[in-house]
Amino acid sequence: MFPERVLSGMRPTGLLHLGHYHGVLKNWVKLQNEFPCLFFVADWHALTTHYETPEVIKESVWDMVIDWLAAGVDPEKATLFIQSKVPEHAELHLLLSMNTPLSWLERVPTYKDQQEKLGDKDLGTYGFLGYPLLQSADILIYRAAQVPVGEDQVPHIELTREIARRFNHFYSREKLLDAKGVEIGRKPILLEPKALLTEASKMPGLDGMKMSKSYQNTLALRETPENISQKVRKMPTDPARVRRTDPGDPAKCPVWQLHEVYSDDTTKQWVQEGCKSAGIGCIQCKEPIIDAITRELAPMRERAAMYADNPALVRSIIDQGCERARALASDTMKDVRKHMGLDYS
Amino acid sequence: MFPERVLSGMRPTGLLHLGHYHGVLKNWVKLQNEFPCLFFVADWHALTTHYETPEVIKESVWDMVIDWLAAGVDPEKATLFIQSKVPEHAELHLLLSMNTPLSWLERVPTYKDQQEKLGDKDLGTYGFLGYPLLQSADILIYRAAQVPVGEDQVPHIELTREIARRFNHFYSREKLLDAKGVEIGRKPILLEPKALLTEASKMPGLDGMKMSKSYQNTLALRETPENISQKVRKMPTDPARVRRTDPGDPAKCPVWQLHEVYSDDTTKQWVQEGCKSAGIGCIQCKEPIIDAITRELAPMRERAAMYADNPALVRSIIDQGCERARALASDTMKDVRKHMGLDYS
Ligand code: SF4
Ligand code: SF4
Repeated sequence: MFPERVLSGMRPTGLLHLGHYHGVLKNWVKLQNEFPCLFFVADWHALTTHYETPEVIKESVWDMVIDWLAAGVDPEKATLFIQSKVPEHAELHLLLSMNTPLSWLERVPTYKDQQEKLGDKDLGTYGFLGYPLLQSADILIYRAAQVPVGEDQVPHIELTREIARRFNHFYSREKLLDAKGVEIGRKPILLEPKALLTEASKMPGLDGMKMSKSYQNTLALRETPENISQKVRKMPTDPARVRRTDPGDPAKCPVWQLHEVYSDDTTKQWVQEGCKSAGIGCIQCKEPIIDAITRELAPMRERAAMYADNPALVRSIIDQGCERARALASDTMKDVRKHMGLDYS
Repeated sequence: MFPERVLSGMRPTGLLHLGHYHGVLKNWVKLQNEFPCLFFVADWHALTTHYETPEVIKESVWDMVIDWLAAGVDPEKATLFIQSKVPEHAELHLLLSMNTPLSWLERVPTYKDQQEKLGDKDLGTYGFLGYPLLQSADILIYRAAQVPVGEDQVPHIELTREIARRFNHFYSREKLLDAKGVEIGRKPILLEPKALLTEASKMPGLDGMKMSKSYQNTLALRETPENISQKVRKMPTDPARVRRTDPGDPAKCPVWQLHEVYSDDTTKQWVQEGCKSAGIGCIQCKEPIIDAITRELAPMRERAAMYADNPALVRSIIDQGCERARALASDTMKDVRKHMGLDYS
């Protein structure tokens, strides 16, 4: 009944790094060839936790969109848009809020986690509690059938399904009949989406921790070859290898984790043997990594430069995407309003 | 800086009665001559408590609007519109939610009251908790300077002021300088409204209780003269007056309360003496009330009939009002988005 639409959003965080690429964008690029995809900048979501520094959001949005395009997201295949440019999200969020029990939101694991982690009363805002509901509205307004998520986000999809079910239960009047004319349910107004489970990114940062801006261990998608080389050369290695002649253990070295991502079996064997026997030096060991990352990022850097030089093009891609998204959102809202008795025409 | 706009809304409850007239509409009719007024149908608010019976809302809206016009609300003077037709309310509601502490909403007295009164888990929805915030958005989006409210609603206006202040504090960047160039504050983005305290309606119902649809003690604004006469004649009186010859006490009689609303001193004296001395009968005592209400409602009935016969006119009044309201709301939202870093043009 509804096309197998895929929806995914990303908070505007400015320049993206390899962690974003391996964790999200590579998957988007694959998905855009398989399904009609909608990818959006979740700028309103950024406000739930960054409401005190709005200026950051605006700057970040364009950098991020350019990096999406740089990574290979294709505006001919996927619809790219900015959440706040489709204010219908807010309307559906409000309407859904009317029959979403508070307890459903309070029990969302990420809510409890964040509350505990931050322990800061100031995050106890109405909007922060409602953030999974806004996510649900984001999904439901496009009748997205599939949402790529990591394990930890599955409860959000589950919540979205429950919200859609409850909404359909209250407002759907049109019966679905089987061949014999027996009622087998109601025609859904909102579609219950499925979680499209994606593996958590295994992209390690330059220090072996998860690559993340807050750890300052990232390689940006637009990193220059010089920087890539410099940053990888500075990477810490197995602390046991104080001198070139000390043998080391890849298991204790962040560089090895990058080999696991980038190197073939031959290279990996060369690292294992060379490290443990002190047959290779650490700088030598890092060369294939520097090459691989430089090769991987070269086309992205090139595309990013092209788009960065042509802001009007980027803007028009987003404008067109917003228009397409708005048309879909309007359709759903017309249906929603009709069933809720809010159409006065 | 902002015009002294007055804003007031009413939930769609269908045909209005004398209680609405004396409690709200008479005041609106007065206010529309003194200020630019915005009066709106709070259809989204109706969903916070009636989300299970949406069909009621739609039917009720047009009946209510006709009764506004019947009561003398003048579309040439005031802007009449439907809340859900200005979806910007939902957008501002969402944006404000991001920096509204949960505790502010939880401590709103009407929230606690309702929760206790209804004791029903199902009212514990996210939307129900956010209802005062939606009210705040309704007010702030028009930069309304004054909001006519009863005593019990004052905390809502106080909350709205706090929300506006907090928003301005976070997002206003433009300094206000005094003559010497010293900063004396920031230019507000949202306006802190003032409560325009209105007396609670003293309109008693046909049984002496507050006039209310749920007590079935109302006289509709469109009540026919026959019905007015019949309903008042059936009103209970002082139970001590079993027979015509039994003296009574107006203090114990709901009819007396209507004399307090409608009768002049001479008539009131006539009632007091005639009742206590059994000099007049109860039917006799009710005549001046029947006359007064019939006179009061005659022009309303006439206007209501005119509008009810002309739904296209009513629709066009509302369409124009919605358009005007939307223009104002758009202005505010442009400003809000700009200050929040959400304008991408
Ligand atoms: S040789 Fe390679 S794996 Fe071994 S410690 Fe040096 S960088 Fe790490
Ligand atoms: S005479 Fe009038 S005031 Fe007295 S009991 Fe009858 S209706 Fe009431």
